[in-house]
Amino acid sequence: MQKAIGIFDSGIGGLTVLKELIAALPREHTIYLGDTARVPYGIRSAETVTRYSFENTRFLLAQEIKMLVVACNTASAISLDAVKHEFPLPVIGVLEPGARAAAAATGNKKVGIIGTEATIASGAYERAVKKIDPAIDVFSMACPLFVPLVEEGWFDNDVAELVANRYLAPLKARGIDTLVLGCTHYPILKGVISRVLGSGIRLIDSATETAKEVSEVLDKLKWKRTDGGTAVRKFFVTDTPARFEKIGTLFLGEGSLKAEQVRVGGV
Amino acid sequence: MQKAIGIFDSGIGGLTVLKELIAALPREHTIYLGDTARVPYGIRSAETVTRYSFENTRFLLAQEIKMLVVACNTASAISLDAVKHEFPLPVIGVLEPGARAAAAATGNKKVGIIGTEATIASGAYERAVKKIDPAIDVFSMACPLFVPLVEEGWFDNDVAELVANRYLAPLKARGIDTLVLGCTHYPILKGVISRVLGSGIRLIDSATETAKEVSEVLDKLKWKRTDGGTAVRKFFVTDTPARFEKIGTLFLGEGSLKAEQVRVGGV
Repeated sequence: MQKAIGIFDSGIGGLTVLKELIAALPREHTIYLGDTARVPYGIRSAETVTRYSFENTRFLLAQEIKMLVVACNTASAISLDAVKHEFPLPVIGVLEPGARAAAAATGNKKVGIIGTEATIASGAYERAVKKIDPAIDVFSMACPLFVPLVEEGWFDNDVAELVANRYLAPLKARGIDTLVLGCTHYPILKGVISRVLGSGIRLIDSATETAKEVSEVLDKLKWKRTDGGTAVRKFFVTDTPARFEKIGTLFLGEGSLKAEQVRVGGV
Repeated sequence: MQKAIGIFDSGIGGLTVLKELIAALPREHTIYLGDTARVPYGIRSAETVTRYSFENTRFLLAQEIKMLVVACNTASAISLDAVKHEFPLPVIGVLEPGARAAAAATGNKKVGIIGTEATIASGAYERAVKKIDPAIDVFSMACPLFVPLVEEGWFDNDVAELVANRYLAPLKARGIDTLVLGCTHYPILKGVISRVLGSGIRLIDSATETAKEVSEVLDKLKWKRTDGGTAVRKFFVTDTPARFEKIGTLFLGEGSLKAEQVRVGGV
């Protein structure tokens, strides 16, 4: 099928998911929407996150997409079932692939989950892991300062290390051997997180797992793109594009990117 | 005049301004709108901040107000002139009162300004101070991590001190004797900011200055409330009220507060 894969995130973090999607499925057209006028979702109520998720989905459907990737952990944790129920196209979130990878990786059946306040408060990761293997103990921690740290460009300084230590020491003390980076910003902090945790704790980044699942679903449906020509990549944002285009390059790990500002819902 | 004073902020921080308003004008009715579904404004473009400011103002006008207080430094820095131009009621921002107090307080004519990315990028504080006294040197610093620190409840720990030191050391090195806390969240960090700066640097909190100006304008217009009965305080928010009500008590320094969720603009 020649239609694009639609991807939305509250802002810029979902570009780490897009990057893996492009690596796995380089020939697929992609349309990315970053809701930069309303970011971050991680501090909002479930009701508001779901309203924003619906509005983002309606915008992407109007662009003609064959599949939706919810590349935001908060929206995946809170709104995925509601989005699937409301919009009957194939919808893939980032949460279940991460939970599956963690359940497969843990040896001692002690898994840590870190994410935004809203993601952790939802309990969705814990439910997803326990659904796969009820014997796994799940320890969760909200890390609200990690996103602002990444956006400030402080990935790897003394502040990042002190903050990581405060959030992660209690998880380390529980003896986890696997940690899910349950927010698309967190892979940028991998260096400092690894240093604080020490060796022997595996980090799970759901982006690669999600890309794998998208590929499998397209295969199963026989919906992969079959015509010739290079893939088209479109980027939309709800605030002005300058900041997104600048920081986006860091996340996408590619040259420059151009985004168009649009209104989504009332914003 | 019996109508209320309308106050809006991007979220919760403006409650520090409301607190001073209540202290200065206990008999005035007040209507507070916190745009919690779209907070923070400090990372958004000027265009988006102005659109949100207009929508907030329209909402408050529909509640019948006699005067508008823009209790958000970012909106005051970016959108105050546009709001005044569009809505011809008395409009007071938090920026000019703070700038006036700083210009009056400085002895060595070296003033520091700290605020959000958007406030500092606008250059509005610097212009306001220099308009009062062009001989004053103004040194500005955006402190994007201060708001998340306050909202995380880390006002006074080792992380707060390390972050404050990173942001404030360059201002201290310039020899400032006065620092404007150009964001309504920052007064909560006064303790750690004072400790990092050491004695001899005066901190300016615009909330008290703003309340003074509101009082003077109402006097001049002869618009103070004259009927009997206790003042009515209404609180509206754009996300669900739980988080606002909880953290709001800290800012308002009063017992409990109840807020009603409303839609503003398309949100």
